[in-house]
Amino acid sequence: MAEAPIAVTTDRRLLRGERTRQAILTHASRVASAEGLEAVSLQRLASDLGISKSGLFAHFGSKEELQLATVEEASRTFTEEVLKPGLKTPAGLGRVWALCNAFLSYVEREVFLGGCFFEAAVAEFDSKPGRIRDAVVEKRDYWVASLGRAIRAAKEMGDVQQDVDADQVAWELSCLLVGANGSFVQNGGNVGLERARRAIRDRLERIASPTAQRLPNL
Amino acid sequence: MAEAPIAVTTDRRLLRGERTRQAILTHASRVASAEGLEAVSLQRLASDLGISKSGLFAHFGSKEELQLATVEEASRTFTEEVLKPGLKTPAGLGRVWALCNAFLSYVEREVFLGGCFFEAAVAEFDSKPGRIRDAVVEKRDYWVASLGRAIRAAKEMGDVQQDVDADQVAWELSCLLVGANGSFVQNGGNVGLERARRAIRDRLERIASPTAQRLPNL
Repeated sequence: MAEAPIAVTTDRRLLRGERTRQAILTHASRVASAEGLEAVSLQRLASDLGISKSGLFAHFGSKEELQLATVEEASRTFTEEVLKPGLKTPAGLGRVWALCNAFLSYVEREVFLGGCFFEAAVAEFDSKPGRIRDAVVEKRDYWVASLGRAIRAAKEMGDVQQDVDADQVAWELSCLLVGANGSFVQNGGNVGLERARRAIRDRLERIASPTAQRLPNL
Repeated sequence: MAEAPIAVTTDRRLLRGERTRQAILTHASRVASAEGLEAVSLQRLASDLGISKSGLFAHFGSKEELQLATVEEASRTFTEEVLKPGLKTPAGLGRVWALCNAFLSYVEREVFLGGCFFEAAVAEFDSKPGRIRDAVVEKRDYWVASLGRAIRAAKEMGDVQQDVDADQVAWELSCLLVGANGSFVQNGGNVGLERARRAIRDRLERIASPTAQRLPNL
């Protein structure tokens, strides 16, 4: 009986700790997307958020751990903003199209400042071997693999011609999506997003089986 | 008569100055491709090359000028290694194919450590407005425009179907080439280069007119 208040206090503390951690990571992923992951340091976040460096240290232990947690936070955002909306469309060619459009929408809505978090992080770390590079490359590869899985599923249900190489097409789609992100960030405006939509629709229509439904305008 | 020796001395000095400048920029472009353009500073290069910072300052005046000269040096390399070899093939669809293959060869031969200099520089500076960002985006856009010109020339001579949008196709080809560079740098091996060759051949065959020659294996 006497335990209840203590448990409540502990829960509250945990909750407060979890909220603080979440607030730190939300800010960290914003800093990383605008200035690069290298800008995410204990010192910088302590100063930005007005908390002590030792408090931050208690949460993350090192700059590398903080950066890895930031990558995980960005990955959670990517899942919410791209994968989940795309996967709402039933399996088939329409799902591949929905996933691509969810990515383009995530770029266009500037969910992250400076375009796709993972494209920026991959470019920043691709020549710096280590745990952060491995983590961002793994997340990026998971996205390309998700496109491949969606194409294979579409093939299994007869939406896609049987001789299509799903991994080749997934790779091509990911190049067009990355290119759209680059055009959006570097040249501004929606020209790249529209070019990507056109190229992806064209590519998907060429692999569609005669019985596949026409792709909707998204 | 008495002027000749002085002129010779001046020429020699100029030549020595030009050689020093060239040696500095060759080293600077290597540092930039491995570690990023931000690593190219007067202090760093003075220390690497064993020359005085004031000597370097006499050549470049500021870190930004040194970085801009490094971008120009990298652009000269790109012209020698990609544009010139590609443009040796006569105008037509074969030239578009040759330009794309010259780019893939430049990545594969690791002319720059860490993949294409401009892709790395564009990613590094795309969220940092200023003269360096403008210079690298301009160089990158020039490459995409060169692909567009080659496609338009192929169209004018009847190698490409008349309803093809040259700028759209150039944009798509550049996405596949950038993707190949990314796969090479981030995942290693030649899988991305082969996927790009396959996708580009496929794309070019689809815009070819019935009278266009078959693309050679390059």
